[in-house]
Amino acid sequence: MSKKTRPAGTLLYAQSGGVTAVINATAAAVIAEARVHGVKVLAARSGILGVLNDDLIDTSSLTRVGIRALAHTPGGAFGSCRVKLKSLEEDRARYEQLLETFRKHDVRYFLYNGGNDSADTALKVSQLAREFDYPLTCIGVPKTVDNDLAVTDCCPGFGSAAKYTAVSVRECALDVAAMASTSTKVFVYEAMGRHAGWLAAAAGLAGRNPDEAPHLILFPERVYDEAVFLAAVDAVVKRVGYCVVVASEGIQDAQGKFIADAGGGTDSFGHTQLGGVASHLAGRVQEVLGLKVHWAMPDYLQRSARHIASDTDFRHAQAVGRKAVQFALKGLNATMPVIRRISDSPYRWRVEAAPLEHIANAEKKMPEDFIREDGFGITEAARRYLQPLIRGEAYPPYGRDGMPKYARFDFV
Amino acid sequence: MSKKTRPAGTLLYAQSGGVTAVINATAAAVIAEARVHGVKVLAARSGILGVLNDDLIDTSSLTRVGIRALAHTPGGAFGSCRVKLKSLEEDRARYEQLLETFRKHDVRYFLYNGGNDSADTALKVSQLAREFDYPLTCIGVPKTVDNDLAVTDCCPGFGSAAKYTAVSVRECALDVAAMASTSTKVFVYEAMGRHAGWLAAAAGLAGRNPDEAPHLILFPERVYDEAVFLAAVDAVVKRVGYCVVVASEGIQDAQGKFIADAGGGTDSFGHTQLGGVASHLAGRVQEVLGLKVHWAMPDYLQRSARHIASDTDFRHAQAVGRKAVQFALKGLNATMPVIRRISDSPYRWRVEAAPLEHIANAEKKMPEDFIREDGFGITEAARRYLQPLIRGEAYPPYGRDGMPKYARFDFV
Repeated sequence: MSKKTRPAGTLLYAQSGGVTAVINATAAAVIAEARVHGVKVLAARSGILGVLNDDLIDTSSLTRVGIRALAHTPGGAFGSCRVKLKSLEEDRARYEQLLETFRKHDVRYFLYNGGNDSADTALKVSQLAREFDYPLTCIGVPKTVDNDLAVTDCCPGFGSAAKYTAVSVRECALDVAAMASTSTKVFVYEAMGRHAGWLAAAAGLAGRNPDEAPHLILFPERVYDEAVFLAAVDAVVKRVGYCVVVASEGIQDAQGKFIADAGGGTDSFGHTQLGGVASHLAGRVQEVLGLKVHWAMPDYLQRSARHIASDTDFRHAQAVGRKAVQFALKGLNATMPVIRRISDSPYRWRVEAAPLEHIANAEKKMPEDFIREDGFGITEAARRYLQPLIRGEAYPPYGRDGMPKYARFDFV
Repeated sequence: MSKKTRPAGTLLYAQSGGVTAVINATAAAVIAEARVHGVKVLAARSGILGVLNDDLIDTSSLTRVGIRALAHTPGGAFGSCRVKLKSLEEDRARYEQLLETFRKHDVRYFLYNGGNDSADTALKVSQLAREFDYPLTCIGVPKTVDNDLAVTDCCPGFGSAAKYTAVSVRECALDVAAMASTSTKVFVYEAMGRHAGWLAAAAGLAGRNPDEAPHLILFPERVYDEAVFLAAVDAVVKRVGYCVVVASEGIQDAQGKFIADAGGGTDSFGHTQLGGVASHLAGRVQEVLGLKVHWAMPDYLQRSARHIASDTDFRHAQAVGRKAVQFALKGLNATMPVIRRISDSPYRWRVEAAPLEHIANAEKKMPEDFIREDGFGITEAARRYLQPLIRGEAYPPYGRDGMPKYARFDFV
């Protein structure tokens, strides 16, 4: 540091959208890297809301131990939010409010850690800053268990949720296999993924052949046909003795109706019952096929399961955090550090800068050739892509009380 | 072995009822310990069914590596079943069928790995053997995530499910805390436990004070009063900003109706929807309080989660397996190796022989003083009891593919 000039201004970091098992690893890397360069880091409380409300947290008080603890703590330590800014024209007042907060704290670097929407917001903020001649470098930092960001090979957060999914499905399949002779014959596991079947596809890593669970995966990329599905379940039970189904929450029927919306029905007390895909499918299997069925809906558990985080994912999350700071200090305005895959096996990757405008309003779909021809499984191409992302175990440290030593901050 | 006489006859091992993350660790210990004494081990395929149908697996083909892999593989490698034999009078023909299989294979030691029902079956078999003057030593080996066996301090399988529960609840609580300002305010987690709230209680280890999740635990030991519950949720959300609820599947209202039976209602497609406690509670919170709610139902995931197994539990599971063989060879007929706690802190325990007749038709309830006075949390007494049981991480080995190296046997 001795020969370098300390960069002017403050770095503002904010978390956005659904949190993940490793978004705090990105935050920790941002803070640590900024310190190396002598840059002060403020973090917005509850994402962009904190910027709008001038509610910022000074991270200078975090010790080295605290930063390390932050890196292995799931959730979003500074708070996140689901607030989407509209276009510059429609939401101009709010964008100007952001600039106001930046001015007040001499923020010269804005790092926005989120998905598509956040990339879009970061891009618009950078445009507005230029318009107002305010010296600001905006960086989008990738994060989402949905794995649907364009340009980047994968999204930090996805690999850990994918590992959780594949491991959980293999485990419950071993349970069902043991019980099937006299008890549960069908098990339905509901995976997150409203628009794309990335996590459902990851479940496919639990088995190596059609007789190994998951026997049937239901992707949102394929129309859900109940008759075809039930016939397939029946066939698997007859062949294997039991059937493990992984269903993406986003599956739709031929009319484009989400099966998950079957929930919101009425339970036998006459009250609203929040359902989902798994409870619906389980009901149909029991009703039509007369088979004993169990089902699981891990919901947030799958995206917060830091205890089974993928080491690849953890390293990705830290790398994009470090690079985001480096890109910011280099003035690479309106970019995002993205993961570029160099080879599948051995798995090699690097982080590159990509323009936010290529990411902001795009959505990466799962490639067509990742889904098996019968629509119920994954291909070798999918395996080659997915497998490195769940590799390695980045375990958190545990205390004498048997619990992970997750940090407890008072930020939110 | 040189000076010892090889014991006469074969040892038959069978798994019974719902499987756990560590029942195979018990099986592996049984096989390994029997080999030390030169005793051949047969395992029944699909529990007692295999004995009734003379469908036995010779474990001699298992290598040392195979036995080690068995020890860290969840589920029941030999298959389990849900078949309860009735009284000796009512089911005499089937009991005699068991003896027939024993005679055929010169079985002198019968180890039945299960819960209350299995202890009862083992006891009855021993009575019948004596009646027929057949030389047989029957041992019940404890196992159940329900933790409801009498005499033993705890049941192998429970500690790992408890650890899964506490860790998962802490993780999803961190997620909800980050999102609560603009999104999910209430999260409901459904824990197994139809008759006793042991696993729901274990969730209490995730927090240390009333403001830490889980904020509300619903025990089957307490009457579920909707108005009181909803008022409590509302109060927590106002005080903390969000509320994490852990509900035992066994909660009942004042009329003794299981809330879980609210499931089996009709979804908006007009079809049967399998529900449960969490989906019902989530529906009520949304409908009455108007709060955004998410819910999770891990179901089998909680009892098969070998990836987060408790080391204490793993050691218990192995110890009861080893001791079961030793007790069998000593002729301690109609006993069960039970875990006796010597002290909480430091946690010390040993395995003792207890008469099956004290265990067979009993059910251990959770002590009254484990539930907080307001009915929504656990006491310090509960913590002292539960904490040692989730201590330590007995991780399975992982492969280069990022998946646990669970054994794949062709037994079932």
